[in-house]
Amino acid sequence: MMRKICVVITARPSYSRIKTALKAIKEHPDLELQLVVTASALLGKYGRAIDYIQSDGFPITARIHSVVEGENLVTAAKTAGLSLTELPTIFDFLKPDVIVTIGDRFETMATAASASIMQIPLVHIQGGEITGNIDDKIRHAVSKLADLHFVSTFEAQSRLIRMGEEPEKIFVTGCPSIDIAAQVILNPGLDFDPYEKYGGVGEKRSTDNPYLVVMQHPVTTEHQYARQQIETTLETICALGIPAFWFWPNPDAGSGDTSKGIRSFRELNTKTPIHYFKNMDSVDFLKLVKNSLCLVGNSSAGIRECSFLGVPVVNIGNRQRGRARGPNVIDVEHCSSMISKAIQKQIHHGHYQSENIYGEGDAGARIANILATVGLTYTKTLTY
Amino acid sequence: MMRKICVVITARPSYSRIKTALKAIKEHPDLELQLVVTASALLGKYGRAIDYIQSDGFPITARIHSVVEGENLVTAAKTAGLSLTELPTIFDFLKPDVIVTIGDRFETMATAASASIMQIPLVHIQGGEITGNIDDKIRHAVSKLADLHFVSTFEAQSRLIRMGEEPEKIFVTGCPSIDIAAQVILNPGLDFDPYEKYGGVGEKRSTDNPYLVVMQHPVTTEHQYARQQIETTLETICALGIPAFWFWPNPDAGSGDTSKGIRSFRELNTKTPIHYFKNMDSVDFLKLVKNSLCLVGNSSAGIRECSFLGVPVVNIGNRQRGRARGPNVIDVEHCSSMISKAIQKQIHHGHYQSENIYGEGDAGARIANILATVGLTYTKTLTY
Amino acid sequence: MMRKICVVITARPSYSRIKTALKAIKEHPDLELQLVVTASALLGKYGRAIDYIQSDGFPITARIHSVVEGENLVTAAKTAGLSLTELPTIFDFLKPDVIVTIGDRFETMATAASASIMQIPLVHIQGGEITGNIDDKIRHAVSKLADLHFVSTFEAQSRLIRMGEEPEKIFVTGCPSIDIAAQVILNPGLDFDPYEKYGGVGEKRSTDNPYLVVMQHPVTTEHQYARQQIETTLETICALGIPAFWFWPNPDAGSGDTSKGIRSFRELNTKTPIHYFKNMDSVDFLKLVKNSLCLVGNSSAGIRECSFLGVPVVNIGNRQRGRARGPNVIDVEHCSSMISKAIQKQIHHGHYQSENIYGEGDAGARIANILATVGLTYTKTLTY
Amino acid sequence: MMRKICVVITARPSYSRIKTALKAIKEHPDLELQLVVTASALLGKYGRAIDYIQSDGFPITARIHSVVEGENLVTAAKTAGLSLTELPTIFDFLKPDVIVTIGDRFETMATAASASIMQIPLVHIQGGEITGNIDDKIRHAVSKLADLHFVSTFEAQSRLIRMGEEPEKIFVTGCPSIDIAAQVILNPGLDFDPYEKYGGVGEKRSTDNPYLVVMQHPVTTEHQYARQQIETTLETICALGIPAFWFWPNPDAGSGDTSKGIRSFRELNTKTPIHYFKNMDSVDFLKLVKNSLCLVGNSSAGIRECSFLGVPVVNIGNRQRGRARGPNVIDVEHCSSMISKAIQKQIHHGHYQSENIYGEGDAGARIANILATVGLTYTKTLTY
Repeated sequence: MMRKICVVITARPSYSRIKTALKAIKEHPDLELQLVVTASALLGKYGRAIDYIQSDGFPITARIHSVVEGENLVTAAKTAGLSLTELPTIFDFLKPDVIVTIGDRFETMATAASASIMQIPLVHIQGGEITGNIDDKIRHAVSKLADLHFVSTFEAQSRLIRMGEEPEKIFVTGCPSIDIAAQVILNPGLDFDPYEKYGGVGEKRSTDNPYLVVMQHPVTTEHQYARQQIETTLETICALGIPAFWFWPNPDAGSGDTSKGIRSFRELNTKTPIHYFKNMDSVDFLKLVKNSLCLVGNSSAGIRECSFLGVPVVNIGNRQRGRARGPNVIDVEHCSSMISKAIQKQIHHGHYQSENIYGEGDAGARIANILATVGLTYTKTLTY
Repeated sequence: MMRKICVVITARPSYSRIKTALKAIKEHPDLELQLVVTASALLGKYGRAIDYIQSDGFPITARIHSVVEGENLVTAAKTAGLSLTELPTIFDFLKPDVIVTIGDRFETMATAASASIMQIPLVHIQGGEITGNIDDKIRHAVSKLADLHFVSTFEAQSRLIRMGEEPEKIFVTGCPSIDIAAQVILNPGLDFDPYEKYGGVGEKRSTDNPYLVVMQHPVTTEHQYARQQIETTLETICALGIPAFWFWPNPDAGSGDTSKGIRSFRELNTKTPIHYFKNMDSVDFLKLVKNSLCLVGNSSAGIRECSFLGVPVVNIGNRQRGRARGPNVIDVEHCSSMISKAIQKQIHHGHYQSENIYGEGDAGARIANILATVGLTYTKTLTY
Repeated sequence: MMRKICVVITARPSYSRIKTALKAIKEHPDLELQLVVTASALLGKYGRAIDYIQSDGFPITARIHSVVEGENLVTAAKTAGLSLTELPTIFDFLKPDVIVTIGDRFETMATAASASIMQIPLVHIQGGEITGNIDDKIRHAVSKLADLHFVSTFEAQSRLIRMGEEPEKIFVTGCPSIDIAAQVILNPGLDFDPYEKYGGVGEKRSTDNPYLVVMQHPVTTEHQYARQQIETTLETICALGIPAFWFWPNPDAGSGDTSKGIRSFRELNTKTPIHYFKNMDSVDFLKLVKNSLCLVGNSSAGIRECSFLGVPVVNIGNRQRGRARGPNVIDVEHCSSMISKAIQKQIHHGHYQSENIYGEGDAGARIANILATVGLTYTKTLTY
Repeated sequence: MMRKICVVITARPSYSRIKTALKAIKEHPDLELQLVVTASALLGKYGRAIDYIQSDGFPITARIHSVVEGENLVTAAKTAGLSLTELPTIFDFLKPDVIVTIGDRFETMATAASASIMQIPLVHIQGGEITGNIDDKIRHAVSKLADLHFVSTFEAQSRLIRMGEEPEKIFVTGCPSIDIAAQVILNPGLDFDPYEKYGGVGEKRSTDNPYLVVMQHPVTTEHQYARQQIETTLETICALGIPAFWFWPNPDAGSGDTSKGIRSFRELNTKTPIHYFKNMDSVDFLKLVKNSLCLVGNSSAGIRECSFLGVPVVNIGNRQRGRARGPNVIDVEHCSSMISKAIQKQIHHGHYQSENIYGEGDAGARIANILATVGLTYTKTLTY
């Protein structure tokens, strides 16, 4: 009997982070992959992860529309509620042996609560980390509901142990996103034309010239400043005059303001050498980053993949606060002069040595192997 | 400006445990009480806590029917989902300064997740304890979402600190249920006729003669054994021949089987000196217990209130595993001879000294005072 | 390509009425049956139709728990809401060519609204009838959402035409429940022991002696009188002293009171020659009725199947008001002396001639054939 | 005791149509207004009707976020479901004597079903009309659930009577939208600067010169053509070269495509003399229309308000098919040459005589007076 592994994907970034594990699960002889796609992963506005999932060859087992529209805190909570109302119906239908949830977005709480209440063993990927914002609450709460932890770093492992999780239930697999970075390192050339492949809007400069990549999301606890924060970064990059590829933000309460900030800026600054993309296949994105001068913003890719890729990063603000990071990262506040200086410093330094903090590039395979063999239970005890 | 304190009551036992705090909040000059009653607290089958709440003089601010019928694990999860879908609407309407959730039932997860995602400061009452069953997952997850912890015991305080909660956010208030026990100790006589006041069904023996009190709930992780477990206890009590007051179980996945077990037994054993009650006002219940030979079953009252009241307890099975307990408790398995011997031993021993493990009888007042003065925030950091 | 016919079963009586059509659909070479079971059809308290469906050999495509507990009007509406929230997810998954809904219960509104909004052709079975209570609103509203009507009687056909429905979209198929009655007439003997096969509680008299069958549901618009109405009937039957088989009511707002009335009566009248059943396979039920003196209460079986079977019926109150009926029915109010006299009159008269008002016994086959060949559309126009 | 009238607003157009009735209800000495705002009426993307409601001085009793994001048929159905899940909680809290629903959008089904199932008298405003698209299903179904009908035209009255509604439950009040048109006729000058007051984007020509107003929504049953339909109109108006004010569409499955069509066109045709508005206060909108050469598109305002205002209308496609209309309307298909010729014909003709088809300008007051005095019941019978 094959073990049925039900992975719930709620957002584009979660998909990027789990992709190599999905592949390994799908190909493992003892595992059957059940893929439930829900929340913003279904929506065009947030990059329709589902299209990438399908074009990557993963069959969708079920899709659940659960985003309550409004982009505010009330609708964020209701979105989790609608997910928690419907996921049990689907889990009851699919009868998985294990449910896998990834990361720390509020919808992961719905997956985790469903699994716990339904007494289905729950695997949490990327627990034990700290970012210093509201996501920490969700991430640690999900860890408390999880039966098994597949963590990215030894630091995360250590933290979960201190939180009372049983050491034998915690596996340091590395982050599957590093698996993709490892593929990129083997073949690092920019072998596609981003304008042609991904469209987007704005100025089109040759990718042969040096360029920046920018990705800045709103911070959940600071969503009232989202507009101002994105404007600071937009103006700074504009003033530097270096061509840049800019990515729209993920869905969060406050992403509306970030998007509005970008949209307004764009209408007023049509000649700025910035090109805007909605999203990109993760391999292509990492290649674009690998060939850039520097990644700017607050994307977790700066902390995770770029430590492995050795790409210089200017990390702005609190979103990645608390995450383990390599020497390739300079942290700055939402201050134009600090951002500007840090970018110039990074350009001057150039690329860094590769670091293994977030894994060695085999996380997907490790995860599938553990899922195939580990003892499964839905009861757990604190170690103290 | 008065602070608006929104307390969400999801079940009868939660109400009993928070009652004196509700009174203290309601009477505090700087606090405004918002009372949201939902889930099984609205349902006759589970004792309609709402009737007690209203007859105790607390105005209901809002009521939300959220129990999805079925008494299985699927519907338990969906119940949490429906709560999490609707609570945000109500919180958006009430705009509380603080939300208070109690205990570890699965619906508390909905309250806690709503508050966290909506960035409203969350108080968790009765965190940090261990019972050794699936409720632990929920309880610790809620603690991870909570901004302030009002715990019952020093043991719980210590455990939350080890889990990484900031020590200055944890207050050892004692359990409000002990406040009621403290009132009962001041006036311990059985000053009401339980048959007349609460009806119920079954034999009616004089309360002047020695009697037992029995309350046995299903255990969430053992719901497949619920029928067998209740039958063991029923047959043991029946064989002892000592008159008993028996209380119907709380709503949980599996309570249907417990109820069926009682119902079948009752139809076949109409002459057994057992009288069955659906539920009872908590003061009356504690008086009934205080005047009994011994409390039998797996009620948390045996561990908490009875340690203060000094009533002998025979605690059966795993439901209270891991909870701090006083010398008044004998733990036994679901085994007829063990239960029988333990009851006889307790009857022989008689009542015990009062213990302060779960508080000193002033928890309600302490909770209200802290709520009125403590700094409120919805951001938190692990201590490590 | 086979047409995918998605039938949504929300309650036990709906299943009985559609059963032969399900069989014909399942066996039709051009049709694929998708069976969605939801609402009270999943619940033990309401006879768990799902068990009968499965033991009849129909595979369940999906099950959705949607009953919000409370048995009041608020929870009835929310139950429809929860169904309407989840059915679209399932329909999106199943991609049916046609959706079939049966009857007039409030949950049918959820099925019908889902289909209409999702622009999936909707078939309504049993439209065009009149019962004179609140169900009429639902039934006619569902007819207005339906694209095709499979009606039981010429009267219903005529009514739908007057309501503006296109005549060519209305098919007089007869009611599938009559198909079962037709089978029973071919083999009418009571060839099973009801006590042994269905358990139940109460006195057990030989089925060789004359007996009554009683089935009385609460009336939605009169739920405040439910208790009093059931007590009137109970006392009347008790006073007559004729042995009776009594069936528990369907789930509706107010069925709690009807059930309580029966339960209380039963505890106080243990010697009355009444035996109580939760429910019964429909063939067995009709055999029991066919061999009875008279069917008493307000079941639609009295109006429909009994007109075909020729069984005398005493129909009490408003629940079936307005439905076409044969000479076998005597209508009375909730008045003990009227009920009593009518039963005696019916016993004196004996069985009646079979009537074809509700069909000729081939409704299931007709329905399947039409579904296989009819033009499908989701746009419709009033005829005026 | 004042009668509590609960009006549920689900979209901007519904608010415009009920506004004068809300004012009359609010000011009536025997009525208490309860205003529930939900669905797209809360969302910025759809014109945030709630802002207009509040700035018009109506206090919001409750707001419910219920739009499930996705703009497809699945999420449309789920949006109705989420509304039907939450409205009962709010109605249970507000305990209205009457619930009022307006029009034919799918969310009105949730209001109507809640009221019917909860046995609260339901008033339907704008029943009995025909538009020839899928909204007809919803509108007639809501009429079947409604206890009282406040219709706009004698034609609608006649249709409801033929559908079996009791004549004495149908009141020809006229449409409240005409009340606003009546105010505009008294003071028809364009006394505001639309650019300054409403912003918007695109070319700004003087309103002293002749101009068109365009408003074209997607048609629910033709949403796959939405993009093509809007492009036809855009290109036609562009080719005519007459300055135009263009309004973004309402939310419906398919409005995404309409919006995308407008957005793409706008990016490619920046010099076209079109100015785009998200929405406008209804008085201002009607003044803008009153002073225009012609209203083009498929807005119901062309059929209703413009018949009273005497403004020439070119009505495109099926959206208003079947609605009673005056001589001021020329109907055309989605064909560039037909649209172009009709506009020129209307410009040549100039304004028309005012017609009373949709009311005499006192609908709001009539509605309030009837609500204050009419007998209230939630049971109804078909007349045949």
